[in-house]
Amino acid sequence: QSRKKAEMFLVRTDGFSCVREKVTESSLAFTHPSIQQQMLMWKSTPKTVLLLKKPGKHLMEEAKEVASFLYYQEKMNVFVEPDVHDIFARITGFGFVQTFYIQDTCDLHEKVDFVACLGGDGVILHASNLFRGAVPPVVSFNLGSLGFLTSHSFEDYKQDLRQIIHGNNKRDGVYITLRMRLRCEIFRKGKAMPGKVFDILNEVVVDRGSNPYLSKIECYEHDRLITKVQGDGVIIATPTGSTAYSTAAGGSMVHPNVPCMLFTPICPHSLSFRPVILPDSAQLELKIPEDARSNAWVSFDGKKRQQLSRGDSVRISMSQHPLPTVNKFDQTGDWFHSLIRCLNWNERLDQKAL
Amino acid sequence: QSRKKAEMFLVRTDGFSCVREKVTESSLAFTHPSIQQQMLMWKSTPKTVLLLKKPGKHLMEEAKEVASFLYYQEKMNVFVEPDVHDIFARITGFGFVQTFYIQDTCDLHEKVDFVACLGGDGVILHASNLFRGAVPPVVSFNLGSLGFLTSHSFEDYKQDLRQIIHGNNKRDGVYITLRMRLRCEIFRKGKAMPGKVFDILNEVVVDRGSNPYLSKIECYEHDRLITKVQGDGVIIATPTGSTAYSTAAGGSMVHPNVPCMLFTPICPHSLSFRPVILPDSAQLELKIPEDARSNAWVSFDGKKRQQLSRGDSVRISMSQHPLPTVNKFDQTGDWFHSLIRCLNWNERLDQKAL
Amino acid sequence: QSRKKAEMFLVRTDGFSCVREKVTESSLAFTHPSIQQQMLMWKSTPKTVLLLKKPGKHLMEEAKEVASFLYYQEKMNVFVEPDVHDIFARITGFGFVQTFYIQDTCDLHEKVDFVACLGGDGVILHASNLFRGAVPPVVSFNLGSLGFLTSHSFEDYKQDLRQIIHGNNKRDGVYITLRMRLRCEIFRKGKAMPGKVFDILNEVVVDRGSNPYLSKIECYEHDRLITKVQGDGVIIATPTGSTAYSTAAGGSMVHPNVPCMLFTPICPHSLSFRPVILPDSAQLELKIPEDARSNAWVSFDGKKRQQLSRGDSVRISMSQHPLPTVNKFDQTGDWFHSLIRCLNWNERLDQKAL
Amino acid sequence: QSRKKAEMFLVRTDGFSCVREKVTESSLAFTHPSIQQQMLMWKSTPKTVLLLKKPGKHLMEEAKEVASFLYYQEKMNVFVEPDVHDIFARITGFGFVQTFYIQDTCDLHEKVDFVACLGGDGVILHASNLFRGAVPPVVSFNLGSLGFLTSHSFEDYKQDLRQIIHGNNKRDGVYITLRMRLRCEIFRKGKAMPGKVFDILNEVVVDRGSNPYLSKIECYEHDRLITKVQGDGVIIATPTGSTAYSTAAGGSMVHPNVPCMLFTPICPHSLSFRPVILPDSAQLELKIPEDARSNAWVSFDGKKRQQLSRGDSVRISMSQHPLPTVNKFDQTGDWFHSLIRCLNWNERLDQKAL
Repeated sequence: QSRKKAEMFLVRTDGFSCVREKVTESSLAFTHPSIQQQMLMWKSTPKTVLLLKKPGKHLMEEAKEVASFLYYQEKMNVFVEPDVHDIFARITGFGFVQTFYIQDTCDLHEKVDFVACLGGDGVILHASNLFRGAVPPVVSFNLGSLGFLTSHSFEDYKQDLRQIIHGNNKRDGVYITLRMRLRCEIFRKGKAMPGKVFDILNEVVVDRGSNPYLSKIECYEHDRLITKVQGDGVIIATPTGSTAYSTAAGGSMVHPNVPCMLFTPICPHSLSFRPVILPDSAQLELKIPEDARSNAWVSFDGKKRQQLSRGDSVRISMSQHPLPTVNKFDQTGDWFHSLIRCLNWNERLDQKAL
Repeated sequence: QSRKKAEMFLVRTDGFSCVREKVTESSLAFTHPSIQQQMLMWKSTPKTVLLLKKPGKHLMEEAKEVASFLYYQEKMNVFVEPDVHDIFARITGFGFVQTFYIQDTCDLHEKVDFVACLGGDGVILHASNLFRGAVPPVVSFNLGSLGFLTSHSFEDYKQDLRQIIHGNNKRDGVYITLRMRLRCEIFRKGKAMPGKVFDILNEVVVDRGSNPYLSKIECYEHDRLITKVQGDGVIIATPTGSTAYSTAAGGSMVHPNVPCMLFTPICPHSLSFRPVILPDSAQLELKIPEDARSNAWVSFDGKKRQQLSRGDSVRISMSQHPLPTVNKFDQTGDWFHSLIRCLNWNERLDQKAL
Repeated sequence: QSRKKAEMFLVRTDGFSCVREKVTESSLAFTHPSIQQQMLMWKSTPKTVLLLKKPGKHLMEEAKEVASFLYYQEKMNVFVEPDVHDIFARITGFGFVQTFYIQDTCDLHEKVDFVACLGGDGVILHASNLFRGAVPPVVSFNLGSLGFLTSHSFEDYKQDLRQIIHGNNKRDGVYITLRMRLRCEIFRKGKAMPGKVFDILNEVVVDRGSNPYLSKIECYEHDRLITKVQGDGVIIATPTGSTAYSTAAGGSMVHPNVPCMLFTPICPHSLSFRPVILPDSAQLELKIPEDARSNAWVSFDGKKRQQLSRGDSVRISMSQHPLPTVNKFDQTGDWFHSLIRCLNWNERLDQKAL
Repeated sequence: QSRKKAEMFLVRTDGFSCVREKVTESSLAFTHPSIQQQMLMWKSTPKTVLLLKKPGKHLMEEAKEVASFLYYQEKMNVFVEPDVHDIFARITGFGFVQTFYIQDTCDLHEKVDFVACLGGDGVILHASNLFRGAVPPVVSFNLGSLGFLTSHSFEDYKQDLRQIIHGNNKRDGVYITLRMRLRCEIFRKGKAMPGKVFDILNEVVVDRGSNPYLSKIECYEHDRLITKVQGDGVIIATPTGSTAYSTAAGGSMVHPNVPCMLFTPICPHSLSFRPVILPDSAQLELKIPEDARSNAWVSFDGKKRQQLSRGDSVRISMSQHPLPTVNKFDQTGDWFHSLIRCLNWNERLDQKAL
């Protein structure tokens, strides 16, 4: 019985485009995993670096060291933030340090080849916040303060920066992780509010704030009501944010390369309400019903906290502009190291994994 | 300052191939979500159907009805399993029902255009088990018994089957979900054991069985030790399996379109051991150490339970051959319906979402 | 070898007194479970009832029915709250309904033999709030709105009230549950703040309110630092409150007869922070450190929300005055009924326990 | 209005006895917490000690040291287990060490004033197992291996043993914790099986063993069906056992002085099935239904694993005979120390509580 099977097409639609593929031998198969290691290679040598650090006078000695190294040894243009520039301006021998207008960061991306951060995860969140559109590659050096995203230790900064600039001898490039961000937009009575657009790296949270009780939040996906949350609130997190607030609320820890969003309720009234993981193509809307008993609060990466009134909503979808971070080893190695280092993940006294 | 930024390449490697892309305007961006709605369209009308049902005499009346409809109305070749064929053979007017040799199912895929299932999720797991390589599209009708994968109710079987065969008027096709399966292989002392390869749809479990205690299971990803599990065991689940055993062990519920694997410990000794979600490119190995105090057990989709001795391991990676299921509505609509129907997800007495 | 063993004493101290007991045959044993069924029997027939209901005009018809029954049939004095009294005063034939001064409820307990509540758990929380010292037995009738504490349904109110007043023929009494309350007191810089004493029935919560982050809360037991909580906050709950907010935060469900306090963190940063159950003799203090980054909020049974400044603390210990509730059946029967009714505890579609 | 309120009685029943108390001023109050610090004082000096240690040749040096100290310095009779006695018998100078017949341990309690353990929690579980009836006070010295119950470190053994024997100068006694045990009995078709009675210190577990699925376990309290468990199994734990297997399955950590039993499901199918804490007066029965699809397994403190057939059940209630452990400090101090030491409870890197 060697009849030919019915031939088929597979039509893929992602909201942006629509592709019709013929299916070889009527056999629906995956040709490769959707998820890939990614390596950054420069075509021309990078010339300009933005050096970010914790605000105030913290870590000035380290900042001076790194700035000198990048300028004198690597012949790079070194930019810092305006308030840090004020400090540098008073120090002899650092006239080479440049700055920019904080009011106008929209062309910052066009100047900067990569960003070097000194400090913890907060500095990377700040970098995410500076770049609303495309973000240059970010390398982050921790100085004792533990961070999930800061995989490089300060001790090796010279070697690590040289690898980023010139490539690793063996590989000609450095591994990077493209960290998905979420584009969040506040709507009032269905209309976008001007200036209320945020690209977040960790999570957007709608919670009851100082109200004793939370009204039900209506949750829509592509305009379809999927559930109502009653409890302390709801977290929509990226994989990068999965190990932050979402984990505290009971969410799973998600590898940054998994293209998804975490929908994690905070102290839900319903015992059967579990965290849910949605595709990166999800278009979510969290809405305060018109008949809600009280207002709610929204915050973006733990900042810019503001009230949501009845009828307000936040729309959330994948941002086109990820934040690329430079890996110390590779994506999976760095991530498991961070889990163990920052969260004591599966640590027992007699057990030293990795 | 309108200098050109350093240009860059992005090299993507997925273990199968390696692609070097120039990055437009040095701006690392996502061009579209990784995850897509998929629609099945026939180029030629399907001719052959495999009709599966719960084993034994259950649901024979329904099977007769569907077989007659497909043969007399839709002029299709109707196949059933050999033991069901034995029953049909004794019923007048069902001589048209064909069967195959159960010993030799490797060419079954080449005959069958699609599979129609009657019963619960168990019948779909059975279908997954019949097709080791490529799996034809599967449509499943529930008859009261609730199932996560059985989105079609039996009442509408004529209309639903017609849509699958001829396409929906509006869309010319039907939405399908390509459900990732995991290829699992048992190794003894580092050597593949003959015949010990399984493609699972829900989960592979390594547990302590009837031993009072479990020795530590060593977990490797791409040959790197990532952790040791001490507890009752560990579950590696697909997104499809995320709402089965993995949820009972505390895992999140993952939309079937998210390309990932769930790593969910069962009653881990360590309080900080949370479920972890890994990319679909992960290459896992769960190994019983040589110095383990006792053996362990492995099972595949809850079946084929067998012992793992000291030094044995199971290697797990994405199967090339997903199981395509036909959706009733679309992927996300079906999935949230199933969550609410099967798990009382977020049900409160006063609350009827969807 | 029949030598006499060393004889021993067991000295029990509970902070109130100290008892030295000789141990019979040097055998340390429990003579009986610590926990007991308790039955209420009147020596003389009760004469006065306080009838409470949801505020406003809700349930006035039911209140009239019950008031008439208690006055005309049972010859009892019927008291209501002042604002409800205003409504009754305008209705012909209800001149018999009495009231009290809301400013002075401290002698209310001396007048009232028992309290009858109409409505949900909120009415019982209100009753708890009216009686700062001793609380008369409370019977609660639900009217559709589901409540954990409202085990009696309104339909049977005549029969149930008669049993409370005259006793059950078979038993001469009715089963009651003595529900532990917690005495909470706010301290500023180590000094008790006047008027800041609360007896709570469900839980006291210290949380971050609308602050983005919570400073570490220091937790003391008998003046000893036991832990610091970092997260959204901490709940100290009674067994009665264990099925309310504490369960949403991951706490266990505790039978109301277990003499204990629940210490349940809300979204703790540390993955290994599990809910802890402490003896009823615990003397807890939750303190905002002097060097905290921000204030915190405290609320008592979800009410009387107020800020805690740096250096402020809340001291929590068992109140001497429990709230006695009348059971429909007995303590354990009522409780499991409530679990299933209110929380869908362990409900699967095919499963009807009890 | 100074009328006398109705006077009332409170009748307390605990299954053993029934007490009728007049309620003072009709005010239902707690006179003191149910839970108390307990101190052990000898009336006459103890004369006989049982010295237990890990089986085999482990810790023989330490055992020799302690035996010599107790015999030569404290003039006590020193008993060891028969197999350890065999080893002592071959060592010069240890002729004073006595033993007993392992077949007949029922009068062991009458000889032994207290028990000294060397090793981890396993040795205390073994001690619990030796004494089916009353258990003498147990002091346990850890030697590096961390244990929850072993609060004394070996370094201070002389001082600690002297305090147990002669009392603390300040207090004349030592604090002890009476650790509740559970009396478990296997029934077949409703009849007690001879020899199948176990007093457990940690937990009794009914699980699916090596069966792929568990039939529903019926759970009764005082002969009333309270729920059916479907999943991997169910744990009934003491407060002492709450930090062992029950915590791994999601149960709360319960202070050993709280008189209760923990009912903790293992990977339950139902999402709303939370751990439940019942009074110490509970009389539980876990039953394999006659129509179950497969057998189940039961184990007692992780030992004596055996099958339960259809119709079999385990009845569980508080044992009259607790296991008294000597505290290093006092009950609460020891317990929080153990939490932090053994479970990394709420450990964050920057945080050293206690």
